Amino acid sequence: MIYFDNAATTRPDGEALKRAAEFATEVYFNPSAKYGGGFAVFKKIGEMRDSLLKLSGASGRFDLIFTSCGSEADDQAIFSSAKRGNAVTTAGEHAAVFASFTELKNRGVEPRFAPIERDGSVKAESILSLVDEKTSLVSVVHVNNETGAVNDIAAIAKAVKAKNPRTVFMSDGVQAFGKLPFVLPPEVDLYAVSAHKIGGLKGTGALFKRKNLSLAPYIYGGGQENGLRSGTENTFGIAVFAYAAEQKFRTLKEDAERLGKARERLFSGLDRDVFTRISPQNGSPYILTVSAEGMRGEVLQRMLWDRGLCVGTGSACSSKNRFSRVITACGYGERVLDGVLRMSFSPATTEEEIGEAITILNATAKEYQNTVLTARA
Amino acid sequence: MIYFDNAATTRPDGEALKRAAEFATEVYFNPSAKYGGGFAVFKKIGEMRDSLLKLSGASGRFDLIFTSCGSEADDQAIFSSAKRGNAVTTAGEHAAVFASFTELKNRGVEPRFAPIERDGSVKAESILSLVDEKTSLVSVVHVNNETGAVNDIAAIAKAVKAKNPRTVFMSDGVQAFGKLPFVLPPEVDLYAVSAHKIGGLKGTGALFKRKNLSLAPYIYGGGQENGLRSGTENTFGIAVFAYAAEQKFRTLKEDAERLGKARERLFSGLDRDVFTRISPQNGSPYILTVSAEGMRGEVLQRMLWDRGLCVGTGSACSSKNRFSRVITACGYGERVLDGVLRMSFSPATTEEEIGEAITILNATAKEYQNTVLTARA
Repeated sequence: MIYFDNAATTRPDGEALKRAAEFATEVYFNPSAKYGGGFAVFKKIGEMRDSLLKLSGASGRFDLIFTSCGSEADDQAIFSSAKRGNAVTTAGEHAAVFASFTELKNRGVEPRFAPIERDGSVKAESILSLVDEKTSLVSVVHVNNETGAVNDIAAIAKAVKAKNPRTVFMSDGVQAFGKLPFVLPPEVDLYAVSAHKIGGLKGTGALFKRKNLSLAPYIYGGGQENGLRSGTENTFGIAVFAYAAEQKFRTLKEDAERLGKARERLFSGLDRDVFTRISPQNGSPYILTVSAEGMRGEVLQRMLWDRGLCVGTGSACSSKNRFSRVITACGYGERVLDGVLRMSFSPATTEEEIGEAITILNATAKEYQNTVLTARA
Repeated sequence: MIYFDNAATTRPDGEALKRAAEFATEVYFNPSAKYGGGFAVFKKIGEMRDSLLKLSGASGRFDLIFTSCGSEADDQAIFSSAKRGNAVTTAGEHAAVFASFTELKNRGVEPRFAPIERDGSVKAESILSLVDEKTSLVSVVHVNNETGAVNDIAAIAKAVKAKNPRTVFMSDGVQAFGKLPFVLPPEVDLYAVSAHKIGGLKGTGALFKRKNLSLAPYIYGGGQENGLRSGTENTFGIAVFAYAAEQKFRTLKEDAERLGKARERLFSGLDRDVFTRISPQNGSPYILTVSAEGMRGEVLQRMLWDRGLCVGTGSACSSKNRFSRVITACGYGERVLDGVLRMSFSPATTEEEIGEAITILNATAKEYQNTVLTARA
């Protein structure tokens, strides 16, 4: 099976699983326990936190709170920061941000959604025109998870702060962290990431918080994570996350360069009569989204699965509507929306897989045309 | 190491870890993905959910929502149900309930705390006297995590509903689930449980919800868990949980009987001049809490650790204050509060360990008297 749905989730890193196994079998103690074993686990969590901060170039400037997923990190950031007035985001956000902004209405905060461009990115002006003196929060996704478009969140955050210095700026960095070369800029207050997109386990995430920024807890209880996230720490998941991140950051730049070329090779091998490109050239090297216009993406996806190629059709998290909310917001019509396929890579992606995928994609689209479309005609 | 701090966390079940490994290495797909691999994982989550419901005798009457921990399950239940008026709980709750009730004040809901008895249990009358027509929620812990006292939540829930049928009744069942023979009664609306107290991993919990009860999501996003808990499912943690629960429920009654006797043997072997019993006779067989009056529990705990016996001093989740909030609420004075030690067992606890623990506990207390107390005098 060629697995090209790494933006939905990745296969956990085998080495990270092996290294983390001690937390499941040997040092299983409760990190809050006041004896040797508890202290040892607590200390190791601290070391893994420091390692993630260091990898991100955020040591000394940011704190890191371990959460149960990227969605929880997004939610904590949003509901803690958007307490009054209005909150601004984009039409291209992941559901964790989009649904939480929708919920803000019920909590007396006005959500404002900036339109996005055809490639899924947002223009700084589109955000700025919605920011005013009553804006408590601005949230802009770092890498659009459906198109791979990269937003220049450093520049947008700076412009937002220039217009309203009291506005909190957050970003969902789930598709960027461990993939794009990036150092958290001082204008970004909160940054949400997830473990299972970079070889960690589902059920682990983290929220970077600028030091001195005040943040409300989202889960109340024993006061773990410095009072900001109660609940016994997911030591095993945290360890897999930290070890997987170490691996990913070690070759981050080389992987990004190599996958950028692989992505272009993949696209250039695709039959242009069938596949239209949605992902921008300057987007994340980890994502290539195309549309097989006039075909049904979900049908194609299953045919591809049967032929040994696993791809996405958009965000795996919100597949209840016929069309992707985000690609719709990019301004495409029904024929394009129907045929959306997302290929997303990992550092384990090989040149051989790219070559095979080209063959499978072209052949499957041809077969679809010969069978499904012919039958329909 | 004799591990008698199983109420804080348990060593993950080796067999469950082994069986769950396929979710980390083979079927790692995103359960929301619309292809064979995604469907397979989604189906397996459903089977594990059904298995947990069946083990609990709750099939057909309850839904089960997987959460990231017992604390999240408690918080979701509380903040969804206590939206107005007042909310009633006990002074003997776990921090996840206690801290959330304290937070209710900031959200315009009046928290009311019923006093507890000397053994940590709550009398139905103490709860009922606080319930009125404005009570939106009552929360009573099933097994007090610091003393092991068992509350008859079925009877209390029934009495609460008789007084105000619109009141939602919830219980934190973290120390009861998989340990005490128990079937969720129709009067209990919500029941929070945790995986890592019964051989699962930290970072996995669940909330039982009576069918037809309306519940608000706590984490917003992709709409997983039937819209009630967004975020990619923690498939590995869920699988370890389900498999560990199967094991625990298989011998639940025998284990409870055996450990009840072991607990009594342990207590009867302890030096009565030193150790006062706090746990009630009819409490959970998994917990024996005593006090070495006049000694410092934390010092004793570390001395015991050095001698190969791992015990708790109260809830591991809230050890920031000198005295346990819960044992203080039981009405004990400083000399008893100082010396609290909690021994908590698991089905893996052996007779040999009980015997050795008696020897270590008595000898360590004697040494404490001979060194620390003598030095102080």
